[in-house]
Amino acid sequence: MVLPYPLALLQRLSIASDTRILLVVLDGIGDVPVDGETPLSAADTPNLDALSREASLGLSTVVAPGITPGSGPGHLSLFGYDPLVYDVGRGVLSALGIDLDLGGEEVAARGNFATFDNDGLVADRRAGRISTALNEELITALKAEISEVEGVAVELHTESEYRFVVRLRGEGLGGEVGDTDPGRVGLARRAAKAQSGDQSDSRTASVLERLSELCAEVLSDVPVAREAEPAVNGVLLRGIGRRPELPRIGDICRLRAGSIAAYPMYRGVSRLVGMECPPIDLEGTGERTPAKLASYRAHSRDYEFLYFHVKKTDSYGEDGDSAKKTEQVEDFDAILPELLEGEPDVVVITGDHSTPVPLRAHSWHPLPVLLWSRLVRPDGRSFTEMDCRGGSLGSLRHLDLLPLAMANAGKLAKFGA
Amino acid sequence: MVLPYPLALLQRLSIASDTRILLVVLDGIGDVPVDGETPLSAADTPNLDALSREASLGLSTVVAPGITPGSGPGHLSLFGYDPLVYDVGRGVLSALGIDLDLGGEEVAARGNFATFDNDGLVADRRAGRISTALNEELITALKAEISEVEGVAVELHTESEYRFVVRLRGEGLGGEVGDTDPGRVGLARRAAKAQSGDQSDSRTASVLERLSELCAEVLSDVPVAREAEPAVNGVLLRGIGRRPELPRIGDICRLRAGSIAAYPMYRGVSRLVGMECPPIDLEGTGERTPAKLASYRAHSRDYEFLYFHVKKTDSYGEDGDSAKKTEQVEDFDAILPELLEGEPDVVVITGDHSTPVPLRAHSWHPLPVLLWSRLVRPDGRSFTEMDCRGGSLGSLRHLDLLPLAMANAGKLAKFGA
Repeated sequence: MVLPYPLALLQRLSIASDTRILLVVLDGIGDVPVDGETPLSAADTPNLDALSREASLGLSTVVAPGITPGSGPGHLSLFGYDPLVYDVGRGVLSALGIDLDLGGEEVAARGNFATFDNDGLVADRRAGRISTALNEELITALKAEISEVEGVAVELHTESEYRFVVRLRGEGLGGEVGDTDPGRVGLARRAAKAQSGDQSDSRTASVLERLSELCAEVLSDVPVAREAEPAVNGVLLRGIGRRPELPRIGDICRLRAGSIAAYPMYRGVSRLVGMECPPIDLEGTGERTPAKLASYRAHSRDYEFLYFHVKKTDSYGEDGDSAKKTEQVEDFDAILPELLEGEPDVVVITGDHSTPVPLRAHSWHPLPVLLWSRLVRPDGRSFTEMDCRGGSLGSLRHLDLLPLAMANAGKLAKFGA
Repeated sequence: MVLPYPLALLQRLSIASDTRILLVVLDGIGDVPVDGETPLSAADTPNLDALSREASLGLSTVVAPGITPGSGPGHLSLFGYDPLVYDVGRGVLSALGIDLDLGGEEVAARGNFATFDNDGLVADRRAGRISTALNEELITALKAEISEVEGVAVELHTESEYRFVVRLRGEGLGGEVGDTDPGRVGLARRAAKAQSGDQSDSRTASVLERLSELCAEVLSDVPVAREAEPAVNGVLLRGIGRRPELPRIGDICRLRAGSIAAYPMYRGVSRLVGMECPPIDLEGTGERTPAKLASYRAHSRDYEFLYFHVKKTDSYGEDGDSAKKTEQVEDFDAILPELLEGEPDVVVITGDHSTPVPLRAHSWHPLPVLLWSRLVRPDGRSFTEMDCRGGSLGSLRHLDLLPLAMANAGKLAKFGA
């Protein structure tokens, strides 16, 4: 396959050098103003402001105008992989994120523990965001009853909170199957449905449909599930698919690429593009900032491209909690000086998608982008959705960010004479 | 071949008319601020300011974000030819620029006279930017000894300063051969290497490798070469290739297209897209403004699309001389009224790439663009990198400029009914 933009250009022009790029992803950072302020603009961020004044700013579209990206496509774009070409299922990303080594014939799906009402309609797609501990109990109960469906080996794995991963192992399993998650409350669970006429896809759909029924049956017999508030009485599956083969970012860009992220999903997408995940203490839950910082301090100079993930900005956007989202930005501002002590030559700060508080969900809104290096045209402004509008970077796309970072790091040769 | 954007649209919609477009290219004009000023913003430019106030401004990316264009790709973009599709070697451009009429089987390469140290590593890729006069002396000496290599006719031609052109004429010569120029000092010359398994490419590579050795041998016996400071003791070849067939800009846009440029390279790329070069007195070296102006006065009304090239803005960027770059802008400002006396209906002023003084090389930074016609939305600003940010033209691509100019000239029909 001919590599899509920008990978072909990067492969052709990249020069190995010891300059270092830091990419900070504030998950779901983009928002829309309420009373003139977004969670980002409302935050008190002296460190970010100082960096921003010396940086070029812009508004960046993740996939295409109006298209709301999932976290997988959002990150693939940031890493230079066109998500319209590299269409990776969420299940695969989640599986990789919990260190499941997916084989070529295997199928992964991302599962949500969910709450259904008496009419069988989805009442809570996340069953009240149950704890990881309860998730583990429920998975243990399900595994005791379910290990095989229609001749296919079924594995169930806790991811975190309400999230789990399904892995199917067997002959003749296709990956083109639609979500059973209807994506909204008040609707019925969708039947697992093959998205092609392929028999292998029908087989996978049939297994996953039966698995969904079995899970609901088993959960109805598990006291901690029945008695939870809200009750955990079913599952929703999405992002069903097989693992694609992606070129490695380090080979394309002639550098070592590392990823510091606490949540499995983000470690998964990093590994998918061939990044290393340096050692990090993943005990506990949530942001785990001290662990990420410790890993950063120990390893920031081991990589010429280092991705650093901040999760909770997205979570509070999904919860519709503007004040908490602002607090997360301020918490990030507090650790920014420590990140800059690693002396990166280029810093990019942006998000993988917007998660506006009024929407309580991912959105299509372009992301504020900050690009700092010794060679940028400084805009002298703040890193907010409003100030990024009309910045030196103009309107750009997430796929443009890796080439820009590479250029600013002196890692790209001239195109043509 | 289906024509790439924007040529297919232009071909479909262009209307012949007598309105005239003037495209001024200030070579390498884009820069980054030092203490808040760029060479362009620091310049005292009353005439440019007056035009700019009535113009639409924007920042334009030449090839793609982060990609540093050579002059060839930079100009092809300006002329509407996607440089990712029309990937023309520098050798071909240089050959055309000195009026070599390349045949279909011939191969051209761009040569640099260079200085190697005692370990055989490149010490100066331009041999101290030798004069054109010395270049001519050296070419004469080389031609006396070298006219044929491995059965292939070899021609050597002075281009200017340290630059020369190699033309190979013979049967079965391929054009897919890599540069021998390593692109940086401190490295050894690269061996000429075929970039495909084709025997024709291997044949060309073998001839050029032997030619490189012969040139070094001959130069070691030439007193003016040996005694130059630094010594001229070798050559570097790049942009090796055959002439591609490009559609003619005049046919696509239904107009007569002319080019006024003093340097061979820019005349070459103009001819490659089918522009005429009206008579011009090319005696002497450097900017040759009087000669260009005389040609402009005599011929500006002969063309509906006229390209006017200003070179030295780039040269002083490459020399890292901010004050001199500013002076070149002011020199251009002084002749702008004479250009406007030609009464063009549309004026576009921009560059083919940025050449920031702090970088002393071409760069990826978007170019300031000024578009004037009676139909633009005037931004009321100055033509600087900072004021062009957020102008009415927004973020655009060089490939967008020809359609915009054509539209403003009333030369494009409506798309669809």
